[in-house]
Amino acid sequence: MAIIMPSRRVRKTPFSPGVEAAGVKGYTVYNHMLLPTFFESVDADAAHLKQHVQVWDVAVERQVQIKGPDALRLMKMISPRDMDKMADDQCYYVPSVDHNGGMLNDPVSIKLADDHYWLSVADGDLWQYALGIAIALGLDVEVDEPDVSPLAVQGPKADDLMARVFGDVVRDIKFFRYKRLPFEGQEFVVARSGWSKQGGFEIYVEGTENGMPLWDALFAAGEDLNVRAGCPNNIERVESGLLSFGSDMRRENTPYECGLGRFCNSPEDYIGKAALAEQAKNGPPRQIRPIVIEGEIGACTGSWPLLVDGRQVGQVASAVFSPEFGVNVAIGMVDRSHWDAGTRMEIETEHGMRGAVVQEKFWR
Amino acid sequence: MAIIMPSRRVRKTPFSPGVEAAGVKGYTVYNHMLLPTFFESVDADAAHLKQHVQVWDVAVERQVQIKGPDALRLMKMISPRDMDKMADDQCYYVPSVDHNGGMLNDPVSIKLADDHYWLSVADGDLWQYALGIAIALGLDVEVDEPDVSPLAVQGPKADDLMARVFGDVVRDIKFFRYKRLPFEGQEFVVARSGWSKQGGFEIYVEGTENGMPLWDALFAAGEDLNVRAGCPNNIERVESGLLSFGSDMRRENTPYECGLGRFCNSPEDYIGKAALAEQAKNGPPRQIRPIVIEGEIGACTGSWPLLVDGRQVGQVASAVFSPEFGVNVAIGMVDRSHWDAGTRMEIETEHGMRGAVVQEKFWR
Repeated sequence: MAIIMPSRRVRKTPFSPGVEAAGVKGYTVYNHMLLPTFFESVDADAAHLKQHVQVWDVAVERQVQIKGPDALRLMKMISPRDMDKMADDQCYYVPSVDHNGGMLNDPVSIKLADDHYWLSVADGDLWQYALGIAIALGLDVEVDEPDVSPLAVQGPKADDLMARVFGDVVRDIKFFRYKRLPFEGQEFVVARSGWSKQGGFEIYVEGTENGMPLWDALFAAGEDLNVRAGCPNNIERVESGLLSFGSDMRRENTPYECGLGRFCNSPEDYIGKAALAEQAKNGPPRQIRPIVIEGEIGACTGSWPLLVDGRQVGQVASAVFSPEFGVNVAIGMVDRSHWDAGTRMEIETEHGMRGAVVQEKFWR
Repeated sequence: MAIIMPSRRVRKTPFSPGVEAAGVKGYTVYNHMLLPTFFESVDADAAHLKQHVQVWDVAVERQVQIKGPDALRLMKMISPRDMDKMADDQCYYVPSVDHNGGMLNDPVSIKLADDHYWLSVADGDLWQYALGIAIALGLDVEVDEPDVSPLAVQGPKADDLMARVFGDVVRDIKFFRYKRLPFEGQEFVVARSGWSKQGGFEIYVEGTENGMPLWDALFAAGEDLNVRAGCPNNIERVESGLLSFGSDMRRENTPYECGLGRFCNSPEDYIGKAALAEQAKNGPPRQIRPIVIEGEIGACTGSWPLLVDGRQVGQVASAVFSPEFGVNVAIGMVDRSHWDAGTRMEIETEHGMRGAVVQEKFWR
């Protein structure tokens, strides 16, 4: 096991002092920034998340800011989703694609004003794509990364903790909607969202200097709720079927292959629309499926081929033992010929061959 | 110290089995891939590099492939350098900028054919920028990431080691030129280049499956040369003034600020040219400078402000003790008012205030 050191290039976050004090034991890097991977253990963190409430440093969800008279025009080019239907307080999950319909990122976009959007991006410099288009077409729009760092509050007690810090008004925030709420003289976008299915919020903290005061306030308010530092949890998110861009899906996949076809409803001539037309009509040649892997599996540190009679019919890039469900849960990308629930395959893990079975649905 | 685990998103390289077997102790992440940071210790690795020869897994130097009838047109848009002067076997250092002249990346471009270029990129998805431009303008060009992983051979004995594997022809390769050389039925681009000033080569290994055979061949051939696994070394590279994009320079800096003005000589109307005109004429308001920091310093894990009378006049993002030169060597970005050699400042390190002095030149 090798260690990792931060630098200016792979940077700490506004919440790093809190994360370090809480005894973070693992990091990954995401959008040129440190992202915790576990505190006590992935198992123990998952069990706690499902019972109590956690505060997550997800500052790595960097914002691509698109602002100016041509902001909506640019958004409509890079979004397969109908942006005209977006409410003023809405968060839109947007699987952005290239001219071939290949996924470039799957950000959550937030509409701050008619001429002002944030895209909360998965791992990847989507701002460079947006910037290239904007420059090439001479659009009147700024594309940059503002000083905004999301902090997530996740778990069944998230509403109670958030209400103590932001007031009972948080209980009225609907799923994938946001309100601007005051905190110590600042005002933050607070959305009901987050990368778990335990419920909760993401607070878009503007201003690095406001990070630790909010972190500290949440921990002070939540002592009797058993609040802990946490992070996106690999067990809970695979059980929930939450896809990781770069692992479960990549540029070679379309939104239809990722089960995200319902987000491709824009009437505009967005980039990639023509390329997606065939899959929109006939369905994709492969698609995301929940998979159970039999036997003992170690860590999944790459991509595991799914095999039938020695022929590859897909792969798995996320797999982990679920203590709650008592099986190895996994996310696969499986060819149409073998994607039906109940289909048995072999899987070539880095720890040996195992059996694998397609499931009807994810575990929650 | 937290550990890091690879995944499909933060992936291993074709050389990872060799790196792991050699006992890598630290990693960073660069272009969504693992990059070793030290083996024995940064000190011991530096001393060995300066005496012997090392093999470096720099697969993280991912290639942006620009191929097709409009390849040169796209290159001329994103390169401030005169691409028409590029010889067929040449490697060109290209500080690519946005419309404001801000640095987006500093790749080394390789001309494979008149309609085929690779950009060996620093940390950042420059391919998304190139792709955005290509799509917006409808250029007839492919922008993608081929299965190419550079392996560097660096150190004073690099010519001898490389000659044993590729033949004495490697001795004829000039600085920043390349030859295509055969290896076990393959043919690789072999350039005299690399991220040290100890001399050496970079081999652009095409095909993941060819990585370990080449790694093993180099180690087998170099036993009596005391060949070791190494990596870009933080001491040697700061002594040498080799800039790290993302740390020493970022989008807020122009090539002139980075001391790279001589590479902005294109007669074409490249993106950012107009914005750079003022600095081309009058010089930049701040610039990279070698700095000595006094006293004991710990690790530099972020950006350290340079202060004069409490006012910030620059910052340092790379600083480390040099056993060879007996001082703390550092790379600063310093305002014009204080960039003259000999200027004394204070620096706010994360371990306390220290004295800092601008130097005449880097240490090699």
